[in-house]
Formats: sequence, structure tokens, C-alpha cells
Amino acid sequence: MDLAELRDRLRVFAADRDWEQYHTPKNLVMALSGEVGELAALFQWLTPEESAAAARDPELSPDVLDELADVTIYLVRLADVLGVDLLAASEAKIERNEHRFPRKS
Amino acid sequence: MDLAELRDRLRVFAADRDWEQYHTPKNLVMALSGEVGELAALFQWLTPEESAAAARDPELSPDVLDELADVTIYLVRLADVLGVDLLAASEAKIERNEHRFPRKS
Amino acid sequence: MDLAELRDRLRVFAADRDWEQYHTPKNLVMALSGEVGELAALFQWLTPEESAAAARDPELSPDVLDELADVTIYLVRLADVLGVDLLAASEAKIERNEHRFPRKS
Amino acid sequence: MDLAELRDRLRVFAADRDWEQYHTPKNLVMALSGEVGELAALFQWLTPEESAAAARDPELSPDVLDELADVTIYLVRLADVLGVDLLAASEAKIERNEHRFPRKS
Repeated sequence: MDLAELRDRLRVFAADRDWEQYHTPKNLVMALSGEVGELAALFQWLTPEESAAAARDPELSPDVLDELADVTIYLVRLADVLGVDLLAASEAKIERNEHRFPRKS
Repeated sequence: MDLAELRDRLRVFAADRDWEQYHTPKNLVMALSGEVGELAALFQWLTPEESAAAARDPELSPDVLDELADVTIYLVRLADVLGVDLLAASEAKIERNEHRFPRKS
Repeated sequence: MDLAELRDRLRVFAADRDWEQYHTPKNLVMALSGEVGELAALFQWLTPEESAAAARDPELSPDVLDELADVTIYLVRLADVLGVDLLAASEAKIERNEHRFPRKS
Repeated sequence: MDLAELRDRLRVFAADRDWEQYHTPKNLVMALSGEVGELAALFQWLTPEESAAAARDPELSPDVLDELADVTIYLVRLADVLGVDLLAASEAKIERNEHRFPRKS
């Protein structure tokens, strides 16, 4: 599955459940905030070192994967209802960052 | 550019600037929270209807694209340092959701 | 109970449980992000009108109170470990805002 | 100034500027998310030790105070439009937490 296929699958998923009425950009931004908050809650008491191993920790890993998936899903759905191409927007931003923060020589 | 190319480009970008030391999962989760907060700030006073047109509004659109790019960039970078495949995790989650919320018939 | 008493009670609560070691400002900012995310999740699919009645909705109200309490608790605890007086900082900010946004005449 | 006086002052501030129309709970939750995101951005690259000194750092301290004030202001305003007493809700929550997490003996 690539990002375009994920977008299409989420589009069908929402349509099949009659959820498009809830999927305004405003609501989806709130849903994204909620999921990023759950991700933050998983990492809040970890040391930097513990955080680096979070996806290999058998207790923590399923929740980390689950929250990363939820963040991805709402981000892709939000971009779709806004009509934004996430990869094109990201590429444009990296190019601006490459000029803004020149690499060490 | 696809998601794997974006991940690789961000990896090089961080290495070239000696920023890998800052890119612990814990720090990147906070950076992601910060960018989602900026996205929320763009939508906070909009009506649902105004939010639906945000990416076509000439004044708002550049900021919306910019923040969506920042969220995508930190999410992809976070998944990379955790060693998580965002598309595989999302596909697994959608399959769970398809069972959890059966489609209307 | 006033805000200073709440701060003192949270201080004792953390000390009694040996949790002060976890209560760095960085960790508490993440905890605050997590709780605000949970609050956002309660409101994400509500219309503006439904949101206005949320604290009177018998199903929603206990969760709204619970999340508002969690946000308050982490904010007060964060300010305490940073040594910041929230009311003084807020008063200074309102004064700046009163100059920045003159009232309609 | 105590919390009730802060609430009253914010109420007048909004009324004087005809901003009550924007201050639905849903919008204020998004504004709170935005400000907590700005707070997270200040702390994202700090070590735990640096974060502990953030309010004494002459460069960082004004921004930390400013963001803590913004979070407090939106939290108090949100509670007001919802008709929730933050101190009573927090006290009830601490009592539940004291039962849920018994102190070490």
C-alpha cells in the first residue's frame, strides 16, 4: 500500500459508514490533536533512552504502532478533504529548509 | 517522491546538520505536538464551512500547506527513528477498524 | 480550595509517591499535551452548538469535568516545578492583550 | 488576582471586543491545543536538565511565561463558557487519584 492507496481506502471507509458529514477539516484537525496527544501520553514519563527503544519494548510497542497509525490515518484523511498533496507539500518544505539551514561543511 | 524517499531525504538532512542527537523519539513526539498545535491554531476560529475551503483560501492556504508539511515531516522522521513502517501500521489499523465498525448495508 | 492550595496539595501528592523524579518540566509539558488531546477528542465530532451544551450533557459531562481537571492539575504542577506564578503571568498577558487589541468603542 | 477575578476579567475582555461569538467550547479547545503546542515547541529539544532551568534562562523565560499565560487564559475561558468550576473539578479529581494511587508508606 502506498500513500495514495491509503487515502483512497480511507475515503471508501468514510463513505461506507456515512461519516463524511463529520469529516470537516476542523473536526479532523481536532481528531489529529487527540491522537498526537495519545502518542505524547505514551512517551511522557520515558527517559530519552527509553524512548529510543519504545518500538522494541514488547509492552509499549503495540500501543506505539497503534497511535502512529491513528496519527497517519487522520493526517491522510485531513489532507484528502482539504485537497492537499502531502508529499508535494513536504518536498516543497524540505527545499525551503535546505536553504534556511545550510548543511555543515 | 514517495514516503520512503521522503524518509531517506529527512535522514540525510538530519545527518548533514548533525541533528541526529536531538532526534530522540521523545523529542520528535514533542515537535509533532508543536506542529499539530500550529495547525489547530489556523483552524480554531473557522466555522466548519470556512474550514472546508481553507486550502483554497489565498490568504490561509500557504500556512495550511506549510503546517501539513511540518506535521508530515516530523511524523515520518519519528517513525524512522523508531523503526516503524507507517503504511504497514496504518493498513493493520484500518483492518481492525473495518471489523470494529461494520459498514452500513 | 484556591490555586495556591491546589499547587501545595499536588506538591505533597507527588512527594508522597516519590514521583518528583518524573516531574521535569519537559515531562509535564508532554503530560499536559496528552490531557489536552483527550479534551480535544471529546469535542472533535461535536457541532459548535453541541459543544456549547457539553457540560450539561449527562453522558459527556463527567468526562469533560475529568479532562478539565487533568489539564488544570498538570498546568499547576508544571508552573510549580518551573517556579512560575500562573496568575501573575496571566495578568501581565491580559494587560499586553488589552493594548494589542483595543476595545470597540 | 485570583482565578475568579481572572475569569471575570476575561469575560469582560471578550464582551468588549464582541468575541463571544467565537468562544464556543469547541473553538476554545482548539485554541488551548494551539497554545499547548507552542509550549511543547519551547521544550522539544531541551534535555530534562535544561527543561528544569527553563524559567530561569533569560532567553527562554519570557516565552515560557507567555505560553503558560496563554494556556491558563484559554483554560479559564473554556471552563467559564462551559460553566465548570476548575478548582472544584480538580479537587474531586485529586481525591479520586489519592484512592487510585495509595501513597507509599
